[in-house]
Amino acid sequence: MSAPTNPAIAATFSPPVMEARRWLNGVTFPPDRPLINVSQAAPVDPPPEGLRRAIAEAALNRPDAHLYGPVLGNADLRQAVAEEFSQSYGASVAPEQVAITQGCNQAFCTAMTMLAAAGDEVILPVPWYFNHKMWLDMMGIVTRPLACDAAMLPDPEAAAALITPRTRAIVLVTPNNPTGAEYPEGLLTRFYDLCRAHGIALVLDETYRDFDAREGAPHDLLTREGAGETLIQLYSFSKAYRLTGHRVGAMIAGQARMIEAEKFLDTVAISTSQLGQIGALWGMQNLRDWLAGERAEILTRRAAATRVLSQLPGWELRSCGAYFAWLRHPFAATSADLAPRLVREAGVLALPGTMFMPEGDAEGAAHFRIAFANADAAGIAELGQRLAAFTA
Amino acid sequence: MSAPTNPAIAATFSPPVMEARRWLNGVTFPPDRPLINVSQAAPVDPPPEGLRRAIAEAALNRPDAHLYGPVLGNADLRQAVAEEFSQSYGASVAPEQVAITQGCNQAFCTAMTMLAAAGDEVILPVPWYFNHKMWLDMMGIVTRPLACDAAMLPDPEAAAALITPRTRAIVLVTPNNPTGAEYPEGLLTRFYDLCRAHGIALVLDETYRDFDAREGAPHDLLTREGAGETLIQLYSFSKAYRLTGHRVGAMIAGQARMIEAEKFLDTVAISTSQLGQIGALWGMQNLRDWLAGERAEILTRRAAATRVLSQLPGWELRSCGAYFAWLRHPFAATSADLAPRLVREAGVLALPGTMFMPEGDAEGAAHFRIAFANADAAGIAELGQRLAAFTA
Repeated sequence: MSAPTNPAIAATFSPPVMEARRWLNGVTFPPDRPLINVSQAAPVDPPPEGLRRAIAEAALNRPDAHLYGPVLGNADLRQAVAEEFSQSYGASVAPEQVAITQGCNQAFCTAMTMLAAAGDEVILPVPWYFNHKMWLDMMGIVTRPLACDAAMLPDPEAAAALITPRTRAIVLVTPNNPTGAEYPEGLLTRFYDLCRAHGIALVLDETYRDFDAREGAPHDLLTREGAGETLIQLYSFSKAYRLTGHRVGAMIAGQARMIEAEKFLDTVAISTSQLGQIGALWGMQNLRDWLAGERAEILTRRAAATRVLSQLPGWELRSCGAYFAWLRHPFAATSADLAPRLVREAGVLALPGTMFMPEGDAEGAAHFRIAFANADAAGIAELGQRLAAFTA
Repeated sequence: MSAPTNPAIAATFSPPVMEARRWLNGVTFPPDRPLINVSQAAPVDPPPEGLRRAIAEAALNRPDAHLYGPVLGNADLRQAVAEEFSQSYGASVAPEQVAITQGCNQAFCTAMTMLAAAGDEVILPVPWYFNHKMWLDMMGIVTRPLACDAAMLPDPEAAAALITPRTRAIVLVTPNNPTGAEYPEGLLTRFYDLCRAHGIALVLDETYRDFDAREGAPHDLLTREGAGETLIQLYSFSKAYRLTGHRVGAMIAGQARMIEAEKFLDTVAISTSQLGQIGALWGMQNLRDWLAGERAEILTRRAAATRVLSQLPGWELRSCGAYFAWLRHPFAATSADLAPRLVREAGVLALPGTMFMPEGDAEGAAHFRIAFANADAAGIAELGQRLAAFTA
């Protein structure tokens, strides 16, 4: 007899990015009309040479770069993250409030395991980041979808109506994946107060914080007394320093949470890649100006995407920011059906909104996520022309 | 109100290795009597220079070494693992049966999530590998402890008596952590047949397979028709190639399982460190002879440990192999109480058996795990003298 499969994982959908890659199989793109890939929120170039050299030198000369490190991360990197968050949020964050993880996805898994067991509930705005939904499904945690308004912002009052005795957390992604929406400070405050009043956690995934268009701190939650009892922040080094292949992220939370974080990370990771941590630290120490330039370039692309995508006849740009635009298409067919056709007929790979919504949701079927950050101004203009010419 | 903590993680014990490190705080060791650390099963030296150079060159010159890779691992490394397992087990393993993970612990987490949900049951021989128990506890999966006999081998008939309708798997570690026992082929066959008859999985953690004293394949389970329906093997590159700081492991299973593995790994990892994978592949391709030398050295240390530890007055060596010895002490106090005293009074750091057993188990209190692989022959002799001189 075959061994069984956990019904929860069997019922979980497959990784959307891997599925989208399969649409490329057997499709050729002429040299004068190459694929425009706006499917994944990931840098396509390696990090600057200085960072690559720092990693290489550590690999050659630092024995500890090949050995286990502390479960919660190297002391120097935890310190640097604490200083960065202290400074940018005007708060006092201790290194003991920082856990280094094998990427920001793992920081989310850590936070959820600390908070919720199978049968508990977590509130996610829709559209959601699909990996969040997948983890909750696999763990048997019930996702309560929270609709967004016309500006792609979630409503705290609607969230309050979803809270039950089993609710353990509300998860917000800001700047948002997949919509790009930057949640206003006042909105985050209302969610924080709501969570605190109900004794549940507010989990903020700030993977794209380095590309927020707003100057200064996007919220002051970290300065609240006792914030560590309510707030958990997630961060990624992958986008800022082009370290996707090294898998380094972070979780910032109350120090008391670290006892539980250490248990989870010890079993699933033991420790984070030493070379990745060394690269992340080098980046934080040496690439401030470079990162500022990267942000400026992304903001330029965002302006181009806003201009181009808001003028597409029949299409509607719902929101745009950080790496992403959330774009309504004018066709009767679903985005899931249109996406493989966009590859073959328009040479455009974009993820359909269905991948970010509950099954059968009409909003998902009507939208695409455009990860514009990987296209320069010319590429975004070409993207606009191809979408305008596409007929379903 | 503070946000809640998942009761399952709150009830999970803390990482033993991190706890043991804290026993070192404030203790100084005289230069002529340095600490003998036999607490962790990990290399203390970096990998050979060629491997370090291969990683450094990839960091400098291969852009893809910094970018996301496929969720299930790089094609070349999956191919190499498939060839290695095909050859050493006389079987036919396809690359599509291999998943690369961020260390072997994560391979275990992957396997368990594929098989079992909260409330399901998994059978673990005791003493167990503590990270296995921690993961099951955090996930709300019930562990059914299976006692070992005098030779530290589990009994298939006793296991059969533990199987219920909720049982999803039996997990065996061979060569064993913490006992070092190498499970005989006939024993593994009986467990395999038992699992197959009951439609549950047999998960073999073969982290220490490269240091098995036996020549040739330790079992023929991979050659069985339909083995992929029952058998899941876990492997680590950490010990063989000294890559603990890079976090690279593997899971070998039926191809149909990879659909579920990809879901889990996409959410918890996205992909494994590229430099780690590049290093692991280089090791497999270039360090065969070196690894054979490493194995010979470990076998020499094993012989020394067997000789020294079996002659300690009052102590009893229960089993010894791969990296570990399982050693009964002669004192009335528990190993948990004795372990910090061993640090202070004997300059020896070893993990107490209590860390590998259900709470309150008398066998745990009576034993230590000695990770002798990190001590050379002189160190093992000195270890014997210090233990012999220790009085409780």
